[in-house]
Amino acid sequence: MSTYAIGVDLGGTNLRIAAVDERGTFLEKTALETQATRGRDFVINEMCEAIRATVSKMPSATLAGIGIGVPGIIDMDTGMLRESPNLPGWHDYPVREEIERRLGAKVILENDANAAALGEKWLGAARDHDDMLMLTLGTGVGGGLVLGGRVWHGMRGMAGEPGHITIHPDGPPCPCGNRGCLEQFASATSVVRMAREAIAKGAPGLARAAQESSGLSAKSVYQLATQGDNDALEVYRRVGWALGIGLAGLINLLNLPIYVIGGGVAAGWDAFLRAMLEEVRWRSFVYRATAPEDSSGSGKKTIITRALLGGDAGLFGAARLPLLVSEAAVHEGVRKHA
Amino acid sequence: MSTYAIGVDLGGTNLRIAAVDERGTFLEKTALETQATRGRDFVINEMCEAIRATVSKMPSATLAGIGIGVPGIIDMDTGMLRESPNLPGWHDYPVREEIERRLGAKVILENDANAAALGEKWLGAARDHDDMLMLTLGTGVGGGLVLGGRVWHGMRGMAGEPGHITIHPDGPPCPCGNRGCLEQFASATSVVRMAREAIAKGAPGLARAAQESSGLSAKSVYQLATQGDNDALEVYRRVGWALGIGLAGLINLLNLPIYVIGGGVAAGWDAFLRAMLEEVRWRSFVYRATAPEDSSGSGKKTIITRALLGGDAGLFGAARLPLLVSEAAVHEGVRKHA
Repeated sequence: MSTYAIGVDLGGTNLRIAAVDERGTFLEKTALETQATRGRDFVINEMCEAIRATVSKMPSATLAGIGIGVPGIIDMDTGMLRESPNLPGWHDYPVREEIERRLGAKVILENDANAAALGEKWLGAARDHDDMLMLTLGTGVGGGLVLGGRVWHGMRGMAGEPGHITIHPDGPPCPCGNRGCLEQFASATSVVRMAREAIAKGAPGLARAAQESSGLSAKSVYQLATQGDNDALEVYRRVGWALGIGLAGLINLLNLPIYVIGGGVAAGWDAFLRAMLEEVRWRSFVYRATAPEDSSGSGKKTIITRALLGGDAGLFGAARLPLLVSEAAVHEGVRKHA
Repeated sequence: MSTYAIGVDLGGTNLRIAAVDERGTFLEKTALETQATRGRDFVINEMCEAIRATVSKMPSATLAGIGIGVPGIIDMDTGMLRESPNLPGWHDYPVREEIERRLGAKVILENDANAAALGEKWLGAARDHDDMLMLTLGTGVGGGLVLGGRVWHGMRGMAGEPGHITIHPDGPPCPCGNRGCLEQFASATSVVRMAREAIAKGAPGLARAAQESSGLSAKSVYQLATQGDNDALEVYRRVGWALGIGLAGLINLLNLPIYVIGGGVAAGWDAFLRAMLEEVRWRSFVYRATAPEDSSGSGKKTIITRALLGGDAGLFGAARLPLLVSEAAVHEGVRKHA
């Protein structure tokens, strides 16, 4: 009998649920609205109902467990959400225990950006690598570090926040309390802020875009950049500058084989790639010693690349969590019986 | 029969060799001058002779191997030194193979700062932790990342360079090619540079110290700081500021239990501690959630502390390398025979 897992991507807006088999094939997929304003219990009810409905469609397969990607900091020891701005009222609530109790299945909680990193490691841009770092450029900048095929959680599950590395010590204030975090230069929010700053100094193209019904967004600024608007290009150059500074430090610290960039702002890849690589190159001697664009020099190269799975990365990664546990158990069993 | 290892700390100036047993006791210790100017072959001859002499004093114990800490970047696959400013002429020379051939024993090369980190993990400030990061504030700023009790080497052995994380994107130029690296604010060299910058703006105490026969050094600036000289204090506050920015990013990224600071500049701990912790606190939300000075909140705390082993950390760490290999072999044997 084949084994599968349920992956859940619990966002502030969307709640997505999928059944995924061991090879990473979607067997079932459901998308709901999160309706976070109706409260925690409502959302958990909806989620448990949808999971039950999905499980009932798989009578001939074994459920390895349920992985749930959640925005916020998770205390890995207790399975409690410590901080989650998009899920108010979930603070210090035993999410994992409650869902396990209701569904009678093994539940693993994971930070959503960590789950996305694990998804890209399993089936996406980093599928050939055991060690990788992912940056997710969304409303904020999330991240996930995967070492030896597993999410690196650190001491209390709080690791993997490269979005809150300081890029400029006197930069714009960040909701995290710091100033000049990577998030303040490379998130969708910061693209819009930088566009507004440019408008204040006189940027006619961006000013027109701001007055259109769709308004300013990372997407509309990128569209303007592709049309050659220099102010819009400059905003994306700034994104690349910040990503380059951050990545250079990460490369010097970790010397990983691959760094994957995903999230909505990564759609502007063409507009920030050049500035990003220029910055990485002059700031990181480890990058220069391992750069793929150098034909000279043997040995493995540092890859900086786009994510491949889009919005599904988190869903795949969440499903991967119980499958990893079940694989480890099988290996342990094999060893014992050997 | 008991097992021991030879640890070698091959610096640009000093060559130190020790025999260390499995519990971390020094059995023998030798210190020589490196005489790097007499060339690579001379140094390797001297080192091999000294190792032979040490081994000959341990007739009743088993040699697990020889660990050598070297300043520079080591290609872990080949055991070649890739870059080593203090050992000119060693570039791309098969150091490991050559020493193995001459001594007929297993040799492991390691970057000196990585070896120091492993030493502090084994017997020093981080001895109760499997995961740790060390910063060595010397002529430059070295570092080592230990995860799961082992040095994290990354893809090609080039990981563990937190001294070359960018603290200020427009800061002073660094020999690594970047600007504003941590090394440019927290090394002994940068303490002297910052003192000179202060003198140029009028710092009478520092100006007097510069004219004394001993001249300006991280030590003389610190001595002045302990006497309350505000310009000297300001230099060390700047060291703390930079360390704080760097550590805040590392804590947000890695959430390690302990960060150890060693090297000569760490002797000025009292003069930079406060500025460092202030900076870490406001810049790292992960630190605030895990700060030891907060009595509220349960769970493990983030420790930032001084190194304990001084100049011996690298020697202990180098000796630890072959012992770790031999321990792993024993465990593997136990498993096979179980």
